[in-house]
Amino acid sequence: MKEKLIIIKIGSHILDDASLMEECLDNFSKIKEKKILILGGGDYATRLSDKMEVSVQKVEGRRITTKETLEVVTMAYAGKINKSIVTALQALGCNGIGLTGADGNCIQCHKREVTEVDYGFAGDIDNINTELIESFLNLNLTPVFCAITHDQKGQLLNTNADTIASEIATAFSKHYRVELKYLSKQKGVLKDMDDKDSVILNINEQKFKKLKEENTITGGMLPKIETALKSVLNGVYKISIGDSSILSDSKGSYTTIKSIGK
Amino acid sequence: MKEKLIIIKIGSHILDDASLMEECLDNFSKIKEKKILILGGGDYATRLSDKMEVSVQKVEGRRITTKETLEVVTMAYAGKINKSIVTALQALGCNGIGLTGADGNCIQCHKREVTEVDYGFAGDIDNINTELIESFLNLNLTPVFCAITHDQKGQLLNTNADTIASEIATAFSKHYRVELKYLSKQKGVLKDMDDKDSVILNINEQKFKKLKEENTITGGMLPKIETALKSVLNGVYKISIGDSSILSDSKGSYTTIKSIGK
Repeated sequence: MKEKLIIIKIGSHILDDASLMEECLDNFSKIKEKKILILGGGDYATRLSDKMEVSVQKVEGRRITTKETLEVVTMAYAGKINKSIVTALQALGCNGIGLTGADGNCIQCHKREVTEVDYGFAGDIDNINTELIESFLNLNLTPVFCAITHDQKGQLLNTNADTIASEIATAFSKHYRVELKYLSKQKGVLKDMDDKDSVILNINEQKFKKLKEENTITGGMLPKIETALKSVLNGVYKISIGDSSILSDSKGSYTTIKSIGK
Repeated sequence: MKEKLIIIKIGSHILDDASLMEECLDNFSKIKEKKILILGGGDYATRLSDKMEVSVQKVEGRRITTKETLEVVTMAYAGKINKSIVTALQALGCNGIGLTGADGNCIQCHKREVTEVDYGFAGDIDNINTELIESFLNLNLTPVFCAITHDQKGQLLNTNADTIASEIATAFSKHYRVELKYLSKQKGVLKDMDDKDSVILNINEQKFKKLKEENTITGGMLPKIETALKSVLNGVYKISIGDSSILSDSKGSYTTIKSIGK
């Protein structure tokens, strides 16, 4: 049987909540299997942009990365957020190493082509350097990725952290039994946002289509689930969405993304 | 004979000059031996502090690191500067990996004790994780350190980049023939600041005392040379100060720091 690899994605809702974050890192550090952490942090970047008087533009929830925005997100994601989390993990006995896609050329991207929208310095992933990342895992290091990548031609790029998580998960699924967990403030994807216990336990392509049509799933959750369904189809063993309890307990109620094709 | 290890420290004077920086990185990337790059960047951090309305306080050229300053320097050093240099090196075919002392617990420090001056979140070095850094070198990675460290208890700290350079050099000198090169805009330490060719070729303890008394060497150059003399005494093979030509040519005129004790 393939060795297990646990990949966890944490976004702004948790990063901005000190006590939730503490709980998550504590649970994360106790995972005994090889593990990788992926950090978002868009809300912090937005606050930093305001402070630095850099205007924030978004199209369908995706940030337009101007030259000034790239500087802000590099400072926020690769600097402040990444290093705070790495040092917090170190204090918990978890040997974290903070990485962008540029470090060791771990994630190679190209600048997104301009079509109807010019996303600026947004990077779409060409290659995950699984060989080097695996060397880090074998050194008992826990890679902590942020949403900054590069094009190997000297240009840093801004890449969605959910996408990084699913691409790393897919790339590793050839040799590992990969479980990808998207951490959320809620117990999972909710049927009714006002009822925190209305967790949708399973989502596949058919159900997703229905939930989308009914407007039960909207906004940023749409691309997240679309990407997740693709990843499961491409070999990722299990993808789940839930609160920090999914880091320690696999029996609770949370959302599992499954593909009909699997 | 011990294997060579080249350690280069680059500070603000070069980091802030795009064409000089390009020349330096080009020369650096061509070094065939194992190599480590250490980056300063205090001037950029000062400009960022101004932009973010964080006041900058210094005592004898050393920054007082308040909580707000720590956030600024973490963003500047670990984020913006480090990642820009790493991606530039990648474009030159040099497999850089950007690191703080927290990443992989590479540099463990303690918060400087408060005596006459409270330096705030300034870190003094306790340990260099040569084993892990050597693993990176053996993976053909080029570590690129910035001036951020940690205490392994969850606190990031600000540590002088010259000190990081000399401590890494000293730690590695047990198993490597370490050459530490401090890059400067000038050809070396100058006797007369108005004469760019008045390079002082050799400095030892006696000469340093004399140059200090005569006020030929002042300001930030004083702790740099004091630290260098200590490092040579503690096993570093060669320490030099000069412009980017010292990266490719060892025959030019530049300043060499030698200890009488060696």
